[in-house]
Amino acid sequence: MKRGTQEGRKSHQGQTIFLKNSPRIIGTFTVVGKKEATGPLGKSFNHVIDEYFGEKTHEAAEQKMFETAIHGAIRAAKLKPNDIDMMLSGDLLNQITSSSFAARTFDMTFVGLYGACSTMALTLGIGACLVDAGFLDRVVVSAGSHYATAERQYRTPLELGCQKPPVAQWTVTGCGATVIARIPLRDEGVARSDGVGATKFPKLTSVTFGKVQDWGTKDVNNMGAAMAPAAASTLIAHFRDTNTTPKDYDAIFSGDLGKLGENILRDLLASANYPVDHSYSDCGRMIFDYKQHAYQGGSGCGCSAVVLNGFILDKLRKGEYKKILFVATGALLSPVSSFQGNTIPGIAHAIVIENN
Amino acid sequence: MKRGTQEGRKSHQGQTIFLKNSPRIIGTFTVVGKKEATGPLGKSFNHVIDEYFGEKTHEAAEQKMFETAIHGAIRAAKLKPNDIDMMLSGDLLNQITSSSFAARTFDMTFVGLYGACSTMALTLGIGACLVDAGFLDRVVVSAGSHYATAERQYRTPLELGCQKPPVAQWTVTGCGATVIARIPLRDEGVARSDGVGATKFPKLTSVTFGKVQDWGTKDVNNMGAAMAPAAASTLIAHFRDTNTTPKDYDAIFSGDLGKLGENILRDLLASANYPVDHSYSDCGRMIFDYKQHAYQGGSGCGCSAVVLNGFILDKLRKGEYKKILFVATGALLSPVSSFQGNTIPGIAHAIVIENN
Repeated sequence: MKRGTQEGRKSHQGQTIFLKNSPRIIGTFTVVGKKEATGPLGKSFNHVIDEYFGEKTHEAAEQKMFETAIHGAIRAAKLKPNDIDMMLSGDLLNQITSSSFAARTFDMTFVGLYGACSTMALTLGIGACLVDAGFLDRVVVSAGSHYATAERQYRTPLELGCQKPPVAQWTVTGCGATVIARIPLRDEGVARSDGVGATKFPKLTSVTFGKVQDWGTKDVNNMGAAMAPAAASTLIAHFRDTNTTPKDYDAIFSGDLGKLGENILRDLLASANYPVDHSYSDCGRMIFDYKQHAYQGGSGCGCSAVVLNGFILDKLRKGEYKKILFVATGALLSPVSSFQGNTIPGIAHAIVIENN
Repeated sequence: MKRGTQEGRKSHQGQTIFLKNSPRIIGTFTVVGKKEATGPLGKSFNHVIDEYFGEKTHEAAEQKMFETAIHGAIRAAKLKPNDIDMMLSGDLLNQITSSSFAARTFDMTFVGLYGACSTMALTLGIGACLVDAGFLDRVVVSAGSHYATAERQYRTPLELGCQKPPVAQWTVTGCGATVIARIPLRDEGVARSDGVGATKFPKLTSVTFGKVQDWGTKDVNNMGAAMAPAAASTLIAHFRDTNTTPKDYDAIFSGDLGKLGENILRDLLASANYPVDHSYSDCGRMIFDYKQHAYQGGSGCGCSAVVLNGFILDKLRKGEYKKILFVATGALLSPVSSFQGNTIPGIAHAIVIENN
């Protein structure tokens, strides 16, 4: 028997999964570098680090960012690491070593996910499903990136001093972590002890997983163009599956298309009869000021991870937003795939977060 | 309210998730290289390829292996690609490009997972959870590897002709894909039309997700030693959570520890009071004959993927096994992490498959 049938409501439609038990975000934490901290959203981040974070390599610094963000989110949820059943995480490095090396410092099960810059939505989506179904009580999900490790991985080591073309984006040094729990807050102790109401804990109500889109872009410096079709595909599927339009959301955030990609997405959505106005913004465009010389804006899976866990969830918790749609986008290339002349596939996953 | 409470039975215990709705394996397919096809398990595989599979690069051949295995599994389930809600897949290449490039050829949502050689169990486990909860009706999960791409990725390109030390394993050229569905078979049309009973469709009954273990191994050629502690950790957690012992399973398969790792795991389990006898085998040891010069045996996430979807599920479908435990193991290193002097973390995920 289908679960949807049992409970009188279908649990999925098209690409969208409906979370009937309202898994809630009960703790978040963000770690960012100095450039991000001095940008327009600087005040919304929890912890600022320098590029080495006290470690000998940038890779070790990135791993420490994950550990710091995860510990921070668990602390914010007034829990201890032992209270968490599973860590779901991903990053941009080969073999997602930042996530898995961080995972060995925690006594919880680990699921590694790879979705390039869509990873925050991917870990949130899978984590929310596992909690919603009652398979797990509490999970922590995270995504992060580091400017120096990403440049070495995907382009050239910083020491070479290579210039970027105008269509490039700037990989964010940042990591965001989120604790998700399904158990009603009155049973958690969390809400009762400090008198905080349920609206302080935004709930995840649906997830739209994306299909891989490849429109033939080959320029490895123009990620916005490679990922915008995937964002459009997932958003259109989401609106169709949920019978909503952009007007049904207080805000829509894509991440991380940058300015150029944001404009492409606006065009694609308009031509699909889902025009978006100023309530739509891109995390990559938001995180840096034009004076910061970040070209088209931020990128890297840390970008949407810190904007979500900082700026966006702050506003949801304060009630300034009631219902938002977060669609994180990833470019699924590797240096080898590009050297071999392949085009760049993109993907995007969307999540609805509400504050009541 | 907890789902466990609602339905009178807890849906998880420790690291183990219980699948109450018996998601079933309704289609499988395996693609292997010539060396694997001429090994002891050769007859259990569906399709044999040469190293380029008609493509110009080994990477393109690996991608085509995924497409072939996925199409094959869907065909074996008597379904069409459009009947499948989601593809969950992972591989060993940087940014899991084999999986994501294959995904762009299918019109289904895509979730990319990275668990090194544990990927088959990881994709099966997450896929089974999503189906069990009713979030999706049917998914296809897959994992695969290619000897030439893995050597270039992790060690040296084949053209250099480097020798291997005796503790090394041989990366399997192979890809396995599995279609999982939860809907009772009488509603599927699949079982009715060809008169095949439910026992032909093995069911997934529990998943034990692993915690990352790092016992300090640094030798990148000795994966068995790096991964055996993770296999022991997950198996011990599984036996404890499910209140079972190795004797409760007709067979236990680890993958891919190789001969040396298999011996280490036997020792670790014996010292934890869960001794295993000849009913335990390692997929890496099984897939090659000692005359095939594969050192400690097979490795790569394609190894346990093809042994599971070939040999093991064949025996389950024939009723020769009633209940087996499959624990796939992964070494979570990258060339960069090893160059920087790090030790090698390991992980293992376990799944119980039954034939009734």
